[in-house]
Amino acid sequence: MADKTVLIVYAHQSPKSFNCAVKDTTVKALTDQGCKVIVSDLYAMKFRAVATADDVKGKLKNPQHFLYNEETMLAWKEGRLSDDIKEEHRKLEQADLVIFQFPLYWFSVPAIMKGWIDRVLTLGFAYTLQNLYDNGMFKKKKAMLSFTTGGMESMYLPDGLNGDINVSLWPLQSGVLRFCGFQVLAPQIFWSPAHTPADARAALLEVWKTRLQGLLDEKPLSFAPTGFFDLNFQAGFRLRSEVKEEFASKPYGLTTAHHLGKPLPPNNQTKAE
Amino acid sequence: MADKTVLIVYAHQSPKSFNCAVKDTTVKALTDQGCKVIVSDLYAMKFRAVATADDVKGKLKNPQHFLYNEETMLAWKEGRLSDDIKEEHRKLEQADLVIFQFPLYWFSVPAIMKGWIDRVLTLGFAYTLQNLYDNGMFKKKKAMLSFTTGGMESMYLPDGLNGDINVSLWPLQSGVLRFCGFQVLAPQIFWSPAHTPADARAALLEVWKTRLQGLLDEKPLSFAPTGFFDLNFQAGFRLRSEVKEEFASKPYGLTTAHHLGKPLPPNNQTKAE
Repeated sequence: MADKTVLIVYAHQSPKSFNCAVKDTTVKALTDQGCKVIVSDLYAMKFRAVATADDVKGKLKNPQHFLYNEETMLAWKEGRLSDDIKEEHRKLEQADLVIFQFPLYWFSVPAIMKGWIDRVLTLGFAYTLQNLYDNGMFKKKKAMLSFTTGGMESMYLPDGLNGDINVSLWPLQSGVLRFCGFQVLAPQIFWSPAHTPADARAALLEVWKTRLQGLLDEKPLSFAPTGFFDLNFQAGFRLRSEVKEEFASKPYGLTTAHHLGKPLPPNNQTKAE
Repeated sequence: MADKTVLIVYAHQSPKSFNCAVKDTTVKALTDQGCKVIVSDLYAMKFRAVATADDVKGKLKNPQHFLYNEETMLAWKEGRLSDDIKEEHRKLEQADLVIFQFPLYWFSVPAIMKGWIDRVLTLGFAYTLQNLYDNGMFKKKKAMLSFTTGGMESMYLPDGLNGDINVSLWPLQSGVLRFCGFQVLAPQIFWSPAHTPADARAALLEVWKTRLQGLLDEKPLSFAPTGFFDLNFQAGFRLRSEVKEEFASKPYGLTTAHHLGKPLPPNNQTKAE
């Protein structure tokens, strides 16, 4: 992983948190391997979460009817985005791998990290209608979620009270990361560290350190190839009929969340090795 | 619906937006029916999205290691939450129905609304380990999502490029609303209004107005009853084995996202009538 650049987008308020310990472990392990590691510590940066006209410098195209996507796309083209967004763009451009490090808040990222997603993944810069999924802007980059939960692992199994964690992660892993073209690595999930004794917590960090050794060589998660869909408005961007027929008889169907109800084959489990 | 109180949590920057038109339509239709309608206009309120120590007045229990949930639960008990959170709590307490009105941002709510969820649904006030799902704090209340999309409807079908919209909504509808006990009404989805001619947009509002007439009498969406799970740490909060056996032979299995890969029976489609 030498010569690679890794961006960690990190969201926890406390330097004494387990999330911070994970982040520090990641920084050290990757730096030791020769990577350049950049950290966006969102709370420390007092990163603005809310998408407003403040993200655009100069005159709005339509101040009477502010449309965030249109105005920020135009501002991006003309170099008029706010400095904090420009800075995150520069980091993203350099990154070979982006790791999102956070505590799970309401089955998703904390608002400050959702703000990073809403504001930094600018239309034009991060995606266009022509550049989505397999054809996405960031198809040469990798990305992954690394997070802590409040609840224990069994609550997030397909037959657990909260339902399959993979379902809850779908909007983030497919709708955000994969949407922008990222190759999505399996999430690193730290189950309920707050209710884990200190020695077991330390062991969790060791497991993560071991995974970090080979992280950039891991095979990414499988999603339905974008070419399986009719990519035009007339056909409605739906699965092509010949693909449907081809996969109907296969034991796992399409190994994507389009078929989340079926068990995934072993090499597609969204679980850290 | 006379004598009922409805809270609309609304997130759009522009008063000229279709979201604003929907919100105004909702306010008028419900007020005309005799409801009391309260609107939390998050951008206009400059609602803070980020969960920090500023949400707690007075001394922190552990300033050296800030843990948001613990500190805010304590502050809630002792009346030391920030005024903006207290105000939203008062609104929630009055509400028989909560409608979240927003444009879909990255397959979820915009960060400012995620901030409302993160900050207002305080541990102790909105849930406890004993008060979840069917046993949730808000089990006498109803809630629903009402939102606009950028993409067309077919993109969000189970065989569409973006995958089933119901999968993307699961963390919000189950993980947030149902988790707190709300009876969840079918989402109201306005597909791609920005690419819809003005007369067709007006027709969409008429459909919504018609639905609003009977909204509070609608049957909520079905989720797996909480009693189906072994609610204790030893058993791991997993589906009870006799329930698994009972449902194994039924055509639709459990009609919940635990089985999202199977088609839902018609009365469980999460689609507006």
